[in-house]
Amino acid sequence: MELRFEDVDDLCTGAAFLGAGGGGDPYIGGLMVKQELAAGRKIEIIDPDGLDDAKLIIPTAMMGAPTVLLEKIPSGEEPIRALRVVEKELGRQADATMPTEVGGINSTIPLFVGARLGIPVVDADGQGRAFPELQMETFAIEGVKGCPLGISDEKGDTSLVMTDDNHRMEWIARGITIRFGGTAYFANYPMSGAEVKRSAVKHTLTLARRIGEIIRNSRSRKLDPIDELFTFLATTSYAVARVIFDGKITDVDRRTSEGFTLGSVSIDNPSGRCIIEFQNENLIARVDGEVLAIVPDIISILDAETAMPITNETLRYGQRVKVMAVRVPPIMRSEAALKQFGPEAFGMSEAYRALE
Amino acid sequence: MELRFEDVDDLCTGAAFLGAGGGGDPYIGGLMVKQELAAGRKIEIIDPDGLDDAKLIIPTAMMGAPTVLLEKIPSGEEPIRALRVVEKELGRQADATMPTEVGGINSTIPLFVGARLGIPVVDADGQGRAFPELQMETFAIEGVKGCPLGISDEKGDTSLVMTDDNHRMEWIARGITIRFGGTAYFANYPMSGAEVKRSAVKHTLTLARRIGEIIRNSRSRKLDPIDELFTFLATTSYAVARVIFDGKITDVDRRTSEGFTLGSVSIDNPSGRCIIEFQNENLIARVDGEVLAIVPDIISILDAETAMPITNETLRYGQRVKVMAVRVPPIMRSEAALKQFGPEAFGMSEAYRALE
Repeated sequence: MELRFEDVDDLCTGAAFLGAGGGGDPYIGGLMVKQELAAGRKIEIIDPDGLDDAKLIIPTAMMGAPTVLLEKIPSGEEPIRALRVVEKELGRQADATMPTEVGGINSTIPLFVGARLGIPVVDADGQGRAFPELQMETFAIEGVKGCPLGISDEKGDTSLVMTDDNHRMEWIARGITIRFGGTAYFANYPMSGAEVKRSAVKHTLTLARRIGEIIRNSRSRKLDPIDELFTFLATTSYAVARVIFDGKITDVDRRTSEGFTLGSVSIDNPSGRCIIEFQNENLIARVDGEVLAIVPDIISILDAETAMPITNETLRYGQRVKVMAVRVPPIMRSEAALKQFGPEAFGMSEAYRALE
Repeated sequence: MELRFEDVDDLCTGAAFLGAGGGGDPYIGGLMVKQELAAGRKIEIIDPDGLDDAKLIIPTAMMGAPTVLLEKIPSGEEPIRALRVVEKELGRQADATMPTEVGGINSTIPLFVGARLGIPVVDADGQGRAFPELQMETFAIEGVKGCPLGISDEKGDTSLVMTDDNHRMEWIARGITIRFGGTAYFANYPMSGAEVKRSAVKHTLTLARRIGEIIRNSRSRKLDPIDELFTFLATTSYAVARVIFDGKITDVDRRTSEGFTLGSVSIDNPSGRCIIEFQNENLIARVDGEVLAIVPDIISILDAETAMPITNETLRYGQRVKVMAVRVPPIMRSEAALKQFGPEAFGMSEAYRALE
């Protein structure tokens, strides 16, 4: 399926929603993709179920602090250079690329790479949303190795990271990202078509596009976008969704540290205060100490009026918002998955309780 | 010339002297080299002037905080893995290895690598002493590129760094070193025999061995080792040397930070106090604010009795010491060299004044 110019904004809206506040501003990624399409390049989105088992798929993405991304716009060559590092190490060219996460700018980086290199983009990812760390991938749960990892900056510098331990991969690549100035572009988890079919969360680019389309359409048709979203999500593996709080932002505590955007946001209404903590992505929402939603379920902050998702680097005092929580699909709630990206993986003492 | 077992201790003593307090404890490196010789392996030291122009020489070394090295002894495979990363990137095997600095453990790492791989070690280096940062090389002054740089840790993890900017190479590799736990092993500045001849400080392994030999011999012959050293150095390109202070260590301020051992040592005698600042290596010696010696000249702290050099990680309160300064050869005092590793390169406002 060819990605149409008019799909890009919808896909970015959905990516921001699934990004759970993090993932980097998809607006920038959307612009990059639209430039490619306007220049006549094609982007082919392919179904993971139809992949030849022997094909080589190399995912591409951005990492670092989304706050820094706003000040250091990529030229576009960065993720391609990262991909080339992995290809050189493997001695083989990628047949396709794929998102590592369907959230924020990382839904669009592979689209850009696909356009530039003329290779298709697999409609799947390894997080079914956005998570902040590189080992937090369904790929890893299914035994796909994260390395070789190629990483690049905007100056043309690159590095190749080789380790058998995906936590070490994250640790080392994060250190390089900090030295690269807070953001970097990478390619990792090179895998076969068979591995994609076994380990990826499928059809998530399509999911993102549909979410964006529903928010846009409901606005133009004067329908309630939140109601429309509930109706749509009920037909997907992200079936349970709810508004867990609405109110006005009264405080944003946000800092760029250790290669992440860290902090919390407070939202008030007459009945109480909701505090959401984030490490790039929203991790937990509490009202007066009671947990309303927790990772890996998705916590997204939406504009109260338009239901447009707000990424954490653009949160500000006085915004009127609704907090929406969405239960992730079963593949992301297994015991192994919770170990990889459940509350404990983020150092939280709370147990996971799926949103119902 | 084959390195003899009985040469190793002398070479380590001289390496500690030329290490100017840094470079990492050569004792550990000496043990590694002696093990290889005891196991029947050979180490051939070759004259840079006799090198075939077309040969490939890949220097090998350790980087990080010498304080950490004491707690994290290398297995020996680390620098070999780093060398392999560079060889793989170049698609060619090294014909020889070489020190990047003749100081501390880095005089011995290439000897170990040479023994294990059966390749010769060039009698030369790129600093004529030890310096803390990777761009501080006569190789760089002569236009030899630092990358590809291969870097490895004790766990088997490796990384390849590619950048055209040697300062960025240092910055990125230091970041990786910090993530590797404070020490790492690397190979960089791969170069031709012609480039070695043009850019290296020559015969410095021999120099180190001779310095150690003189200190040892003068002890056994009841001669003054300092006088003997002066007499010997006068016959080399390190012709000017002097004792700039002697006294008792009254304070050591030493911390491990940013991938270095940073701090200062105070030495008192009845007439005043000498304060020496270091970043791994001793950078400047002042008495009551007056500069007695400054980089790139060598400042080494010797045991007052035996003239054995004391590396900064083993300085302690109460030691009776002599501070010796040595003027470096002309190749290291050129305008370009001072820019690379003179006082300004270390952020100091003092101008270089050669020891006379």
